[in-house]
Amino acid sequence: MSRFNTQPYIDNSLSNAPEWLNSLLGKADIEINGRRPWDMQVNDPRAIDMLTTRGSLGIGEAYMEGYWDSPALDQFFARVIRHSLDVRIVRYLRFRYLLHQARHILFNLQSPERAFEVGEQHYDIGNDIFEIMLDPTMSYSCGYWDHAKNLEEAQYNKLDMICRKLELKPGDKLLDIGCGWGGLARHAAEHYDVKVTGITISREQLELAVQRCQGLPVNIELVDYRELDGEYDKIVSVGMFEHVGFKNYEAYFNTAKKLLKPDGLFLLHTIGSQYTSYRNDPWVDKYIFPNGYLPSMKQICEATEGRLIIEDVHNFGMDYDKTLMAWWERFNAGWSSLSDRYDQRFYRMWKYYLHCFAGAFRARRNQLWQLVLSRPERSEQYRSTRPV
Amino acid sequence: MSRFNTQPYIDNSLSNAPEWLNSLLGKADIEINGRRPWDMQVNDPRAIDMLTTRGSLGIGEAYMEGYWDSPALDQFFARVIRHSLDVRIVRYLRFRYLLHQARHILFNLQSPERAFEVGEQHYDIGNDIFEIMLDPTMSYSCGYWDHAKNLEEAQYNKLDMICRKLELKPGDKLLDIGCGWGGLARHAAEHYDVKVTGITISREQLELAVQRCQGLPVNIELVDYRELDGEYDKIVSVGMFEHVGFKNYEAYFNTAKKLLKPDGLFLLHTIGSQYTSYRNDPWVDKYIFPNGYLPSMKQICEATEGRLIIEDVHNFGMDYDKTLMAWWERFNAGWSSLSDRYDQRFYRMWKYYLHCFAGAFRARRNQLWQLVLSRPERSEQYRSTRPV
Repeated sequence: MSRFNTQPYIDNSLSNAPEWLNSLLGKADIEINGRRPWDMQVNDPRAIDMLTTRGSLGIGEAYMEGYWDSPALDQFFARVIRHSLDVRIVRYLRFRYLLHQARHILFNLQSPERAFEVGEQHYDIGNDIFEIMLDPTMSYSCGYWDHAKNLEEAQYNKLDMICRKLELKPGDKLLDIGCGWGGLARHAAEHYDVKVTGITISREQLELAVQRCQGLPVNIELVDYRELDGEYDKIVSVGMFEHVGFKNYEAYFNTAKKLLKPDGLFLLHTIGSQYTSYRNDPWVDKYIFPNGYLPSMKQICEATEGRLIIEDVHNFGMDYDKTLMAWWERFNAGWSSLSDRYDQRFYRMWKYYLHCFAGAFRARRNQLWQLVLSRPERSEQYRSTRPV
Repeated sequence: MSRFNTQPYIDNSLSNAPEWLNSLLGKADIEINGRRPWDMQVNDPRAIDMLTTRGSLGIGEAYMEGYWDSPALDQFFARVIRHSLDVRIVRYLRFRYLLHQARHILFNLQSPERAFEVGEQHYDIGNDIFEIMLDPTMSYSCGYWDHAKNLEEAQYNKLDMICRKLELKPGDKLLDIGCGWGGLARHAAEHYDVKVTGITISREQLELAVQRCQGLPVNIELVDYRELDGEYDKIVSVGMFEHVGFKNYEAYFNTAKKLLKPDGLFLLHTIGSQYTSYRNDPWVDKYIFPNGYLPSMKQICEATEGRLIIEDVHNFGMDYDKTLMAWWERFNAGWSSLSDRYDQRFYRMWKYYLHCFAGAFRARRNQLWQLVLSRPERSEQYRSTRPV
């Protein structure tokens, strides 16, 4: 919708945007009802009210209601985040954010009793969405796009890169903390002849993972990582650390160290943030990942110091932009087969989620790290590897 | 010398070791006048006095005087450090260490006015020592020993790995902060057709670097990094960050960011510590690297956060053990040509330095990191690489 549209509700939406908001958006060259793909098209003045009173949560909910849109939502978010508009707007909304942040500081939102919440809310939504959106290995994490022509290749290359970084050998006992639908467990068991124990906190994931790993030496369990015992040659954890929470980082690394043989290797694959903060985004927290939290590298180093040695860090965050956009294309293309079970508000919520994450990676606020960690007792130099 | 030696001074040395010291050494299975290569052979009771009253500084000075020895000094240190005996002994000597630590916290020991101290004290000792000890490229930093048969190959591979990680292209302007004797500048100019500006704070290094890079597009300057201007495609800094000091980390990374083009790459090669502390070893500080300081990864992350993005971290600390032992062999073999200029105390000081560092890397307290950093504005995914 162009700025020259004369319908009365458009005039309303323009008039109700306060000067400070127009000026803030201007820093990222975003116009309300402008003509560029990344501009905000306001369809209902409530969008502006919700943004100016409830910040990130309000603008997200307004999007879900269809009160505004943007032809290239990913570009909109990349601009917003590159210019830190979401951070700047907090100045105008400080009180509400402080309440949200206080919740994270005062409570352990990822305590063992609460650990299953995200499993129930997000990962149990329905495997049907993930089956349509994800590649055939059902990898719900960043692919590795160097030399990859499509999502399938990017995910296959990622899985295989992890196995090679871990120096998997026939007979190795591999622990997969947060095994999802078993894509990595299956790849490792099939191609590297290892015995895998995978753990998840989602019943829906468990069922499908068990099914997909049938006939292979893979054991999937519904258990919190803090309750595990045993000793493993290698440990891997892909896309699960985002649910651990900064209050539990030391416990997490202590657990990994306890479960790892002295000469073993531990690969941690996680989204990270370029900034240390003690809150997550309120909209993402409410609708997508309850109690999620993105670590900064400083926080990872703090929590590993004196426990585990960082042997290798591989950042390929911009590949997550590509992965998310590929997921969006598949989700959107497959929507007709989902639309009888999910409503339009869900569709818009999911679209918003995938695009705001893509924008955050493109703007380089979010990072994707693969770390390889070892115990100080390890006697051999670890030789890190990269696909060529 | 065995414990059964009946010469009176040996009895003295045994009798003057307090019970807590024997018990402390016992934790690392080290015996005074024992028979294993890593045991301490005390030749003069003053060794024990100096250790128990002045800790690390005392034991180092006692070694220089020949008051004690160990057939395998590297193994002695690896045991001491693996079991943190040097940290535990501080409990008995707390007051002296606090004074030392206070000096680091109260003063900026690496201020621009003091920056040239280490150049004068360590790097100007005499190029003759370094020419004998180092490989032909005169790389005074950790080699990369994977697939290397000797020091020459390890250093060549390291230099080339740096150039490849930096994605050097013909015509690139490369800044080398702390260029030493110009080994990397020469390699990059010769093999990658780039224009190099190298800076050093040592006059002796400058002279030899200029000589060794003659005929190549390499410009060497005697200048502190904080005084630089200009814009570079790539920046490299090898074995110089150890002299920067934690009070100057933010200034260091701000300078690098200022000098780097938006799409550029910055490779930082530095020794690090597994622990964050605010002091260096008093003996090393006095005799080897005045005002040196080893960063923890946490400190690097703190100082880069919001400034530069960590694209890649490569830890090959155990290769420094090999590098130091290779330097020791060459230094020892070439000693006859140096012994007219340097006395026996210098020889023992240098031997002690190389072996205590080798032990610290072997015990994994010290790390060797190559980081690749970029500016947040960089639009392309950096693809990290490893030699195969």
